[in-house]
Formats: sequence, C-alpha cells, structure tokens
Amino acid sequence: MKASQFFISTLKEAPADAEVVSHQLMTRAGMIKKLGAGIYSYMPMGLRVIQKVEAIVREEMNRAGAVELTMPVVQPAELWQETGRFDKMGPELLRIKDRHGRDYVVQPTSEEVVTDIARQELRSYKQLPKNFYQIQTKFRDERRPRFGLMRGREFIMKDAYSFDRDEAAAKASYQVMAAAYRRIFDRFGLRYRAVAADSGAIGGDLSEEFQVIAATGEDAIVYCPTSDYAANMEKAEALAPAGPRATAANPMVKTPTPGKSTCADVAELLGVPLATTVKSLVLATDTLNEAGEIVKSQVWLLLLRGDHDMNEVKVGKVPGLDAGFRFATIPEIESHFGCQPGYLGPIGLKLPVKLVVDREVAVLADWICGANQPDFHMTGVNWGRDLSEPELVADLRNVVEGDASPDGQGALAIERGIEVGHVFYLGTKYSKGMGATFLGEDGKPAHFEMGCYGIGITRLPAAAIEQNHDERGIIWPDAIAPFTVVICPIGMDRSPDVKAAAEQLHEQLVAAGVDVLLDDRGERPGAMFADWELIGVPHRVTIGDRGIKEGQIEYQHRRDAAATKVAVAEVLDFLKGRIAA
Amino acid sequence: MKASQFFISTLKEAPADAEVVSHQLMTRAGMIKKLGAGIYSYMPMGLRVIQKVEAIVREEMNRAGAVELTMPVVQPAELWQETGRFDKMGPELLRIKDRHGRDYVVQPTSEEVVTDIARQELRSYKQLPKNFYQIQTKFRDERRPRFGLMRGREFIMKDAYSFDRDEAAAKASYQVMAAAYRRIFDRFGLRYRAVAADSGAIGGDLSEEFQVIAATGEDAIVYCPTSDYAANMEKAEALAPAGPRATAANPMVKTPTPGKSTCADVAELLGVPLATTVKSLVLATDTLNEAGEIVKSQVWLLLLRGDHDMNEVKVGKVPGLDAGFRFATIPEIESHFGCQPGYLGPIGLKLPVKLVVDREVAVLADWICGANQPDFHMTGVNWGRDLSEPELVADLRNVVEGDASPDGQGALAIERGIEVGHVFYLGTKYSKGMGATFLGEDGKPAHFEMGCYGIGITRLPAAAIEQNHDERGIIWPDAIAPFTVVICPIGMDRSPDVKAAAEQLHEQLVAAGVDVLLDDRGERPGAMFADWELIGVPHRVTIGDRGIKEGQIEYQHRRDAAATKVAVAEVLDFLKGRIAA
Repeated sequence: MKASQFFISTLKEAPADAEVVSHQLMTRAGMIKKLGAGIYSYMPMGLRVIQKVEAIVREEMNRAGAVELTMPVVQPAELWQETGRFDKMGPELLRIKDRHGRDYVVQPTSEEVVTDIARQELRSYKQLPKNFYQIQTKFRDERRPRFGLMRGREFIMKDAYSFDRDEAAAKASYQVMAAAYRRIFDRFGLRYRAVAADSGAIGGDLSEEFQVIAATGEDAIVYCPTSDYAANMEKAEALAPAGPRATAANPMVKTPTPGKSTCADVAELLGVPLATTVKSLVLATDTLNEAGEIVKSQVWLLLLRGDHDMNEVKVGKVPGLDAGFRFATIPEIESHFGCQPGYLGPIGLKLPVKLVVDREVAVLADWICGANQPDFHMTGVNWGRDLSEPELVADLRNVVEGDASPDGQGALAIERGIEVGHVFYLGTKYSKGMGATFLGEDGKPAHFEMGCYGIGITRLPAAAIEQNHDERGIIWPDAIAPFTVVICPIGMDRSPDVKAAAEQLHEQLVAAGVDVLLDDRGERPGAMFADWELIGVPHRVTIGDRGIKEGQIEYQHRRDAAATKVAVAEVLDFLKGRIAA
Repeated sequence: MKASQFFISTLKEAPADAEVVSHQLMTRAGMIKKLGAGIYSYMPMGLRVIQKVEAIVREEMNRAGAVELTMPVVQPAELWQETGRFDKMGPELLRIKDRHGRDYVVQPTSEEVVTDIARQELRSYKQLPKNFYQIQTKFRDERRPRFGLMRGREFIMKDAYSFDRDEAAAKASYQVMAAAYRRIFDRFGLRYRAVAADSGAIGGDLSEEFQVIAATGEDAIVYCPTSDYAANMEKAEALAPAGPRATAANPMVKTPTPGKSTCADVAELLGVPLATTVKSLVLATDTLNEAGEIVKSQVWLLLLRGDHDMNEVKVGKVPGLDAGFRFATIPEIESHFGCQPGYLGPIGLKLPVKLVVDREVAVLADWICGANQPDFHMTGVNWGRDLSEPELVADLRNVVEGDASPDGQGALAIERGIEVGHVFYLGTKYSKGMGATFLGEDGKPAHFEMGCYGIGITRLPAAAIEQNHDERGIIWPDAIAPFTVVICPIGMDRSPDVKAAAEQLHEQLVAAGVDVLLDDRGERPGAMFADWELIGVPHRVTIGDRGIKEGQIEYQHRRDAAATKVAVAEVLDFLKGRIAA
C-alpha cells in the first residue's frame, strides 16, 4: 500500500475530552473520530487494527470448533421479555419503538437470540456440543461514556455461546474456550493475565477475565509471582491468618478522641498502628411482602480492620446478606447504636444487630473501635472478655499486597489491568428462563448447559495502547499494527535512486506477504518520522540519498533508540528476521 | 472443514410467509433465520456466502483506490437535522432516544456522517480525490418487509462516497466506481446488466443500477439486444415516432359506449385496435403561500395511448409539473370536465386545462377519447381539425417491447431484474447542505463534488438465488457458494476405504486452497444428496465403496444431469479444471 492511496490524518493535540492516553493517541493518530458521546467512526488507520484483531479472533474461534453466525443488531423485545431482561436491565439497554410502536432493543449481548436459535435448531443431544459466535456491533447506553474505545457506547464485541448436554460437557467446552483465549491473547503480542473472576450465583470457579496489564487499568489484578494464581480483586480470597489470636494485654478503656471519626485519625491520635483499629460498617436487609413493600428490616454490623477495604462481592456471599443488602440509613444507625457514624462499635448497643467479623478482626487482640458515643473510642477491646466470641466470621475484605496467596505458594502482588475478555460458565440460567431444551440420550428433554465468552474487539486496541506507548506515540505489537513496516523515503521527489529503491523494497515486501506502507506523501523527514512514531508502526525503514549510494538503508524498530544500517541486498531477510511470526 | 465441526440445518418445508423462491430456499437451506419482521440472523451457512460477497467487494473497492472505514450504526440526530433528512425522511428512518432523551437514528445510509468526516478531514484540494467506503449494518423500517433478505429491514450494505474538487473529477471518480462495479459483478458469476437510471434533479446520465437478471425481479430492465443500450423503465426513453401523422379519414362522432369506461372496453365494443384509443389522465399542481397553504391549483390533462402506461418520472420532468404534482380530485375533475372519470377527453371542456400530449398521441389520426359525457366517447378525433394542434408534446409513457432503441441501433427488449448495486453522481447536494468545503488550488473554499455507490451485500445472495435455482434448490456460482466442493462419502462408517479416500481428498483440497466440506454426518445418500442440492454447493464428489475399489469416484456439478466417473488419481486436477478461477 502506498500512503497516497490510503488516508493518513494526524493531530498535534489531543481533544480536550480525551482523559486517557489510548483515547488521546488513537485520536491524534487518526484511528478514531468522535461522532457523539461514546460513539466513534473507526477511521481507516484504526479499522486496520480492528480487522487484524478480528482476524486473529476468528481464526482461533474456528480452530476451537466454534461456528460463526451473525445475529441482528436490532432485536425484537419479545425474547428479552421472556428472560425478564427487557424490564430488569437499566437504561444502559437502548430501547427503540418501530413505526408500528413495537418494542425493540439494540443488542448489548445476544444470550436471548442465541438461546432462541438453539431451542429451535439443536433438537438432540447428538447435535451437541455446539458453540455459536459472532463478531458484531453492540450498544450499551453508558451513563457516562468516556475514555474513547475503552468505555464507548457503540462497540464491536466477539460473543460466543456454548451449548452442552450436561455440566461436565459444558465445563469441557469452557476449558476449550479458555485455551482458545490464551492462544488469542498470546497472538495479540500483549502482556496479559487470565484471572479467576467471581461467577456470581452460579458458583464454581468457571469464570475468568482476560486482563491486559497496564498501569492505567481500571481493574486491580491479584496474582502470586511464585505460582500461577491470579484473580481479580472481587474474587481473590483473603485467607484466615495463620497464627492464633494474641492474648489480651490491656483493659478496655473508653478513650476521648474528639473530632477523630476515621480509623486513620484515631490511630494517629493514639500513636498506634492502623491495623489495630476496627471500622464498623452498618448494612441492612429488608423483608418484602408480595406487593414488594418492606415489612421488616434487619441491621447488620460488619467489622473490618481499619487498614482494610470492604469487598462488596464477598459481603454479598455472607449467609443472610446473599439475597441483597443495602447500607443502613442514618435513622436505623441512630436507633441501634445511639450514635451517628464515625464513633460506632459493637459494644453497648441500644438494639441488637447481626454481627459479621472479618477473618483478620477475629484474631485481633487489644483493638480499638468506636464507643457509640460522639468523640469517644474504646481501646484495649478483646473478644470473649469485652464482647462475645464472634459467631459469624467471613472474608469481607479486599486482599492487599503481601497477603498469603490462596494456593499457599507465596505472597500476593497486585497490578492493574484492563478487562478485554471474559469466559463464563452460565449453567442453565438462560435455557431454563427460555424453556430451551433438547432431547437427551434417555429420550427426555433437558435444559442446555451454557457458557458465554466475550472479547471486546474495539476495546483491545485501546488496551494495547495503554500498555504500549511512550511520549512519542503508540508502539503496536506486530500482530495488530495497522502496518507492520513503513518505508520512509527521504527526498523521493528529488532522488530517482531513493524512489527506485523505495518502490522496489515496497514491491518485494508486498510479494513476501508483509503488510507494508510506502510513505510517498513527500513529507519532510521530521514530520514523517513524527507521524509514524505517533501511529506506532513497529518497523521503519528509512531510505536516503546518501545511504542508497553506499548501498545502505536504515532500520529502526519503534522501541529502538537509534537506527541500524542494513545493506540493501540484505534488507528483506533482515526484516523477515525482525517481524514476529 | 468437516460437517461435524460446522452447522447444517435443512428443512423440507418453507415457512408460510416465504413468498419468493430465494426466501424459501435460504430458509430451507439453513442460511437465514427470521427473528422478527424483516430481521434475520445470518446462520453459519448463509454467513459464508455473505462473507464471500464482502471479500470480493472489499478487494475490488481497495483495488479501485477506495479506503475502508466504519461509521457508527447509531448516529446522533444533529447531522441528520443539518441536511433536513431527520424531518424529511418518513417512518422508514428508525429513530431512537437515548437515556438522556437525545435523538438518534439507526443508519439507513451515511451521507451525513461521511460528509461530516470530509469537511473536517479533507481540507485541501491536494487531498482529493478521496473515496471512503464501509461494509456495515443498516436499517430501514420498511412498512411491509418481506421476501426475506430481498426487502428486509436490517441488512448489510457496502456504501461508498467519493469527494472531488470539481465536476469533471467527480465524473472521473464515478467512472472508476462504475468500472469497479463491473469487475465486482463479473466476479460474482451472475448474469447482470448495468442500466442507466434516472438521476433526479441532479441531471446528467451519471446514475446506473446494477441489476441481476431474474424472471422474478421487481424491476423492468429495458435493453437493446443489438447494442449496449440498457436502462431501467423509469429512465428508458420512448422516441418520437419516425413517420408523419396520418391524414384524417373520418369525421368526429359522439358515439354511445354505455358502461365502457376503460380504453380496452371501448376498443372491444367498437372493434378497433386499442392503439387508436387515447386515455385522459388528470393531474393538478398547487401554488402555496409562505405558510404552506394552497392558494391556487392548476389542472392538467395528460393524453396517452390506450395501450401505454404513464411513467411518473417522465411526467415529473414536464415543464410545469417538475416541481411536484398530484392526481386531481373528483371535484376538480367534475368542475373542469363536467363529467366523472371514465369518459374524459380534451374536447368540450367546462374550464380550460393545461394539455400535455404523449409523443405517440401527437401523431395519431382518427383517434378515440371520452366525450366528457357519461356513456359516450368521441371517435374520429383529429388534431388541428377537432381541437388545436398540441402545444406541449413529451415522452410520458413507459417503453414497450419493440420500441426503437434510443441509440438508434435496433428495437428494445424488456427483461426483469433485481437491483443490487447503484452508482450515483450526487453533485454538491450534501456538501452544500452541510457547508462541506475544501481549499481549492485558487485558495478559495469550494464545495465537494460527491458521488455515492451502494451494493446490497445481503440482498446479493437472494438475487443470485432468484437467478440460479431449480426445483431441488439453489445453484451457487463458484465465487459465492458457501462451499465450493462437497465430498459425500457413502457408508463412511462401514468402509475404511471410503473413509480414507474421503479424508485424503479433503486434505488435498484444503492444501490446494479449495473451500471444501467433507460431509461426515453419516446421513444416508438420499438425504445427503438432497441437502447438498438444496444448499446448492456447485461441485459434488461422491465416494462409494464399490467405486473406490475400482479406483474411481463420481463427480457431479449441481447443473449436471448425471455423475461423471473420475479416476481417484486424477480427481484433484479434474476438480481444479472445473472450478471457476
């Protein structure tokens, strides 16, 4: 390809609303163009990246035995009403009425449609397993779209759905997909982790996120550097402390802490480690009648160490809180504790509450908590002496660096990542919801065991950039670069030698199947190099008049600090050796 | 590919709502699956066809220098309001409100968005010409979607838009696209015609439709078998008759024609040729004030021969009618003619009307028309004697078979076609509407000269089927067949020789780059052959136990009446010779 036949458009400045580096660089490199909030045109330079991502995904999905189809973007509401998602999903589900006033949605995913296809088409266990996938436009009406392709409203997703005869077969299909995802992400040429994720009510460990490692990532990834353990923050278990509880050494004392309503302030005032303070979080659960009205509420008190953060997913699995909870209201707190938040604690309550104690708090001795009286905390609090031994002990907190790895193989580390893929065992959630059955080997109808598997096709390039860039621009891995090689001739118009050499190398590379662009725009070297460093083509060949007279061109990888001279006769082999297979 | 890794689903019966053969066959062959009115999933077998169509289009568009991008499916209303199309377009434009109540549309085409991109990105004449295209999901909320992919609501279209510095350059870009379209349609392997189409108010001949020839086509295609002339019915000109008007032979007589209100009935009653009767069509034009109210109306009388049909596009070009017209109301007719429709004519009017006479009527002598009195017609009517010579003579009618070709090279023939492509010179309609300019060589801003170029990607397979099918099913051209070759082993489970030969041939064809499917489902021969005849794979190889012992397999093209025996050693070369390059 020659630049004159293509479309290159670079900007010196990023738009004011581009908060993250991938959004800034994709806009400046002419890869995307904003049309509206969270809605982008994929410009020619960007579309090449997206199409390379699609091609890798398609190849590996086909290799893994998945079968491609395309489901509609605009979907009638009926199926979405069958599963209840038409009503349950919030405003992020874009709803439409057609000319006849009938309801439709713009697909955010396609569980309903694919399950409808399966219940019509997959009639016998003999047709299973089957995995259908599509690479197709999706829409989620995000309340606050931002970060370019990272959190857009319209995006392209690869979504796959497996159908199996039983749980064991479904888990095997899940593993086939998880393995395909590893091949896909390996081929992208990105540093990533497959991390265990929470699988919600379905249970089991069959949920993994594929996270591209990037300091700017939204998600915290927990991993063990000395083992294979990796999980997202929601999922990563904080083990119970290994040792026994220390013996009580101090008496319980009501201590004045005027104006110190946070654990950090109290620890500082008293000159004690933050880890000896305990924070009180007050939740509530409601009992509803058939009309959906609250007939009874129960108040809960959660105790976590002052240096720990609550993990909502884990709290949501505590018996009694697993059907949904909310934070307590101020009146509820005052009626139970006789005090406003900031000085709450488990001792001296006005009304009983249900107590849930984090594993770390359960082994504390001589700890500090609120005294249920403004401007006072209790110090030297001890289990069994000052209050009953905790009955309900659970993992309620986010892990922190240095925590023991759940697999017992070392200490946990944390890095940040961007989720671009997810494999998930669905069980029979949708097949039961839609009455999707097949005839089993025993002649009886059975519900499909399902899995779903997504890759954010348009999010991936953004994540790749968050991971691979410098102050000059993007640095693409070979596999998904818009062009693998760019030829930059210096003074092509003035020097017939440069022109001839550039065009010959271009032809040779095209013939060798290398995705090459010859920059024949006639830009001056500085502007030309700046463009290609911004755009991030990994391999650059510069052809100048002096060099060519000496039979040499210059090669520079986007990550190289300086150029390497290469003899013209050897350049083809040289490049082939540098380009990732 | 093996059938066991793919998804094959055939039906004996077509759904009740499938009126046309392509809809019936695509459904029965498991290529599409209806989700809602005019909304289909493209099933694996159908998606393969669509992807082959896309690949050919993409290759030739790139070869012609067009640059691919992807514009959003969901587009903010602002740009559509700029051109006025948000209000002007009827309910076929699918409108959406997002969570914030803002207006959006689902793209039916993308003139607005691409013009917006151009006015931002193409700043100088040096960047021109530029042609942007996309292959992307579209939606038109048809009032009565039907015929499967032929007239769906959601569909895939390739839409391209050229931007040029002046009219001459735009016309050159148009010709580049028209040539690319010929290559594309040649490669599809279909019989088609590129026919001149009406270009509306823009003028010139720069509008061509690409019509796939099919007896079931919606459009009439006019062509000259002895020359290159081809046009659609709207556009094809009916030349003025070559000879002079005959001399009047009869007196004008008011003749009773009780109950005979149509030309055909009158001709039958009087025993004269239908071509001697003249039909009266009454139109009206309105003058509006600034508030859009009708302040004056003008009644028009059009005279056409009884055996001819009015062509609305041609009538819309008559001076005075070219700003829009309507059919006259009954009160308007009665006040001007003193008679109800059925017996109208140009003689003895109560109020004057503007008369427009078709070229053929202008040369008639002794003709018959209504007498403006119920149950009476005038016979023996002659121009210049019974009424003034016609002042306004125009081509008002559809051509008929045998009419002289407008290029003077023979007589016209008519066949039916399905429009799957359209190339169109737009001029400055959108660039002026949206203030889209570039800096010209003279340093002054100028409006882009534009063209637009569409191909109905998902309509093309339906048109291909309308052209190529028989009572057993579809007959795909090689280029867009879901598979080029199918291998049908007979008794693969029982015969290790058959299995080995089938798998070896499969591997050889895959290695040779042939798109082959090995049917390893274990179906009985009758069912297997019926499936592949329905699906329409062009080349079939059957491998049986007896044949293989004799070193032979059977080859049958989908159009062949019988199979041909081929030696196993020669089958690869044999197939290569049969498959279209």
